[in-house]
Amino acid sequence: MEKSAFQKARDSYKPVLPKGLRTAVGLKEDETTACIANQDEIKAMFPNTYGMPVVEFVEGEEACYEQMNTGVILSGGQAPGGHNVITGLFDTLKKLNPENRLFGFLLGPGGLVKHKYIEITETFINDFRNTGGFDMVGSGRTKLETVEQFEKGYEILKYLNIRSLVIIGGDDSNTNACVLAEYYKAKNYGIQVIGCPKTIDGDLKCEEIETSFGFDTATKVYSELIGNIERDCNSARKYWHFIKLMGRSASHIALECALQCHPNVCLISEEVKEKDMSLNDIVDYLCKVISYRADRGMNYGVILIPEGLIEFIPAIGRLIDELNDLLAFHGDDYRFMSHGEQREYILNHLSEANKRTFETLPSEVARQLSLDRDPHGNVQVSLIETEKLISKMCAAKLKKWKESGKFKGKFASQHHFFGYEGRCAAPSNYDTNYCYALGASAAHLIANGKTGYMATVRNTTAPKDEWKAGGIPITSLLNMERRNGEMKPVICKALVDLKGRPFKELMMHRDEWSKETAFVYPGPVQYWGPSEVCDRTTITLALERQK
Amino acid sequence: MEKSAFQKARDSYKPVLPKGLRTAVGLKEDETTACIANQDEIKAMFPNTYGMPVVEFVEGEEACYEQMNTGVILSGGQAPGGHNVITGLFDTLKKLNPENRLFGFLLGPGGLVKHKYIEITETFINDFRNTGGFDMVGSGRTKLETVEQFEKGYEILKYLNIRSLVIIGGDDSNTNACVLAEYYKAKNYGIQVIGCPKTIDGDLKCEEIETSFGFDTATKVYSELIGNIERDCNSARKYWHFIKLMGRSASHIALECALQCHPNVCLISEEVKEKDMSLNDIVDYLCKVISYRADRGMNYGVILIPEGLIEFIPAIGRLIDELNDLLAFHGDDYRFMSHGEQREYILNHLSEANKRTFETLPSEVARQLSLDRDPHGNVQVSLIETEKLISKMCAAKLKKWKESGKFKGKFASQHHFFGYEGRCAAPSNYDTNYCYALGASAAHLIANGKTGYMATVRNTTAPKDEWKAGGIPITSLLNMERRNGEMKPVICKALVDLKGRPFKELMMHRDEWSKETAFVYPGPVQYWGPSEVCDRTTITLALERQK
Repeated sequence: MEKSAFQKARDSYKPVLPKGLRTAVGLKEDETTACIANQDEIKAMFPNTYGMPVVEFVEGEEACYEQMNTGVILSGGQAPGGHNVITGLFDTLKKLNPENRLFGFLLGPGGLVKHKYIEITETFINDFRNTGGFDMVGSGRTKLETVEQFEKGYEILKYLNIRSLVIIGGDDSNTNACVLAEYYKAKNYGIQVIGCPKTIDGDLKCEEIETSFGFDTATKVYSELIGNIERDCNSARKYWHFIKLMGRSASHIALECALQCHPNVCLISEEVKEKDMSLNDIVDYLCKVISYRADRGMNYGVILIPEGLIEFIPAIGRLIDELNDLLAFHGDDYRFMSHGEQREYILNHLSEANKRTFETLPSEVARQLSLDRDPHGNVQVSLIETEKLISKMCAAKLKKWKESGKFKGKFASQHHFFGYEGRCAAPSNYDTNYCYALGASAAHLIANGKTGYMATVRNTTAPKDEWKAGGIPITSLLNMERRNGEMKPVICKALVDLKGRPFKELMMHRDEWSKETAFVYPGPVQYWGPSEVCDRTTITLALERQK
Repeated sequence: MEKSAFQKARDSYKPVLPKGLRTAVGLKEDETTACIANQDEIKAMFPNTYGMPVVEFVEGEEACYEQMNTGVILSGGQAPGGHNVITGLFDTLKKLNPENRLFGFLLGPGGLVKHKYIEITETFINDFRNTGGFDMVGSGRTKLETVEQFEKGYEILKYLNIRSLVIIGGDDSNTNACVLAEYYKAKNYGIQVIGCPKTIDGDLKCEEIETSFGFDTATKVYSELIGNIERDCNSARKYWHFIKLMGRSASHIALECALQCHPNVCLISEEVKEKDMSLNDIVDYLCKVISYRADRGMNYGVILIPEGLIEFIPAIGRLIDELNDLLAFHGDDYRFMSHGEQREYILNHLSEANKRTFETLPSEVARQLSLDRDPHGNVQVSLIETEKLISKMCAAKLKKWKESGKFKGKFASQHHFFGYEGRCAAPSNYDTNYCYALGASAAHLIANGKTGYMATVRNTTAPKDEWKAGGIPITSLLNMERRNGEMKPVICKALVDLKGRPFKELMMHRDEWSKETAFVYPGPVQYWGPSEVCDRTTITLALERQK
């Protein structure tokens, strides 16, 4: 494997562990926990793993640890730092007992079910220290949900004499880890299950989980690119750049990038929903900003759009819901109609309110919503190029305004979508250290006999000496939600809090940013050099943890 | 202006000048030059600036310099380092005589003609040291070509008592600088004109000009992103990523990125032309690579496509030429036809060979070629989404191969276009120093009474102490070429040399890279840290200058 100069230099970086994990480690147990809602139901569903205490690792007494084998799984979309969770886990397991062994299940949770694995050894792992990507063992989107899968997994775990399993994933994967922990405990299989909070989307967090790993690096990569485009925009002075940012549901990524780069506009899906804005309201707002700047000679700017926006527009959400039902039910006769007939059919069957929404949609979007269904019968919203849709609608409205004399400028646009560029970047110093510590925490949770916990590292806005490692019972994060028509216990997704400090910061400045050109250029992620450049956290985290 | 931590830290970076420019500067004159072709014609057109010697700056004797005013213009597309040419120019002018003044013409050459300018002062310039973008004075695409423009420019230069003008631009802008230098000299206006080699495309180079500035930084930014996508590709293992890279004509950017990242395929426009490949030949080649990997379980990979590809495909180039003539001539009757009628009309009027090419094109491309003409009557090739076109054609061919049993894999694709992300990045250490030295060279060329020169900095693959600053007469780079139907003296564009070392390096490895997954991840541009990471040049330059 040929390596770049950067990779070689980065190989030798030594992540720093929180003080409590450096030498002999002790365990401090807090009060017992309850879950955030539906306590009785969830307590009943998780009799063996409910109500456990939050734990913290502190300096402790030297101890001897029995030999044990551990398995690890990367689940779902890539996030910078995944490899370092595994190196932190590996190094700590070896420190606890040099005879400990670590197995990686291949290509995600499917590897556990299909019994595909490798043993992770010192020589093998060294090539992956401080690197991006999930290519060490691969990842996958198989969901561990059924008893059959749990039993298939148990077969291979028993065969390899594995006593503990670490699942690195987002909210759904950690929900599944929680169910699996309960199942193995109830069955008395003697297998502990530990989760780790991963996702660039930043929507798996709470008081105890300051951030999901990868969010820091990914938002820095996107901010580098947005800053570069802003500088180009401000140099060429002829385009409006519409930039869509990955993040299927929550708008944390767009918000963080806006706080870093000060674009002219950053749409926040959660706000659109809260204010019951229509697509037309959004376009109207953008056109006002464009027109204001045009009146002052500035026919250029930068607009950030979160990927999940469309589904958060309440009217479109309701329309999609009704369309899903309608097309699922009338699928077969419908399929052989012409496009015109399909449109006619839809308009005849929709409720009045949704019909009005459907009629206002640009024709391509209407087509997209009428045609494509994924295997579950849902519309594939991600196929809608929201950035182009919105810019096209702006162009149409500005043309009308121009005719009536309301808009006097020029409007030309460029479109970008950033997602794949950031998911596998080399982890920032923050994610490098945070992930390594998460892996080390997971090892100590295992050594202390814990199951159904998620590894945590807290106080990460303080100097590294003051970082605190520990764990939180996953059950404490659960509530009941409807999924595929059934009520299920799931981890509550952390959407952008419209009363939280990061959003308020945006609100405080956005009027100024929309009028002036207040661009800030964050530059690329730096790994060496001044600490205020290399080691800064996200602005979101800094604001959230402000005392 | 609020600045990021990165911007603040970068403000204080001090570029290092080549030894010859550090203290007192002397001038070493080489032999006189001839131009690369059409010597007699060009000599006759440039009687005052033809045949001048190449010059180099060496340590010299302390001298006194008269006060003078200078103007500077940024011309054409942005490239990282433009601001540092101006800071190098400014600092050196002030060192030569603290009373010297520098004026920046606004928004490109148009600023000279329209008399829009600002004075560049110490406090003003400090905010732009080592930054990307051209926002210090803006840029523009007005071409300085007519006597009327030259005289308009002279008016303001005389008014501001400006005795020298530095034009920072690509091949066309430097050609125009050359014509302007000759004109002012012939008229005895006492105004010197100096050019500086700028373009991320890397196609303005020769023995004396090692690289155009911006190429280093832009290719590093694109390589960062390509590397990140490669890592994602190799982690998710489910997509072929088709990445189009900016570079209107030459394929230097794609080639350099390929040498840095080892993608599965990198198309080179110059090779496609040389081998007279058709669009179908290209697609066939790609499908063979995709199929080979699919047979070995690898349904994923990365393909780089230079932006200018379409026009280099000889059959399509010939088709476009004929279409341009056809549609320019028959424009009016044609405009009111339906799409079907237009297609019919085109097929009825094209020559046999071009008709066959037209018929093989996917319908959207055929439409694009039949419809859109820019104000000059040319087809807007840049509107064709080559990366999507090629991936679509691959999908269609693989589907046929699948039916016949020739292809047994899966094919899913993602598309990216990188351009705006790199043009205004903060300049790499290389471009920071190179540009600053170019600006300093320009100042010394002026101080030594030169005109019609381009500033040069050579030996840049050696340690900075051994860099050599100087200048080359622009006339020596000229040859006669047909432009808009007329023979004109222009700087010969440096396309990818199919016999040169960089292309040979690609040839030597590309078979292996197409079969194996040999990805290399260059990481983001680093400004601090190990020198082998921060100060490396491009691989193209290193190979070209290898002894």
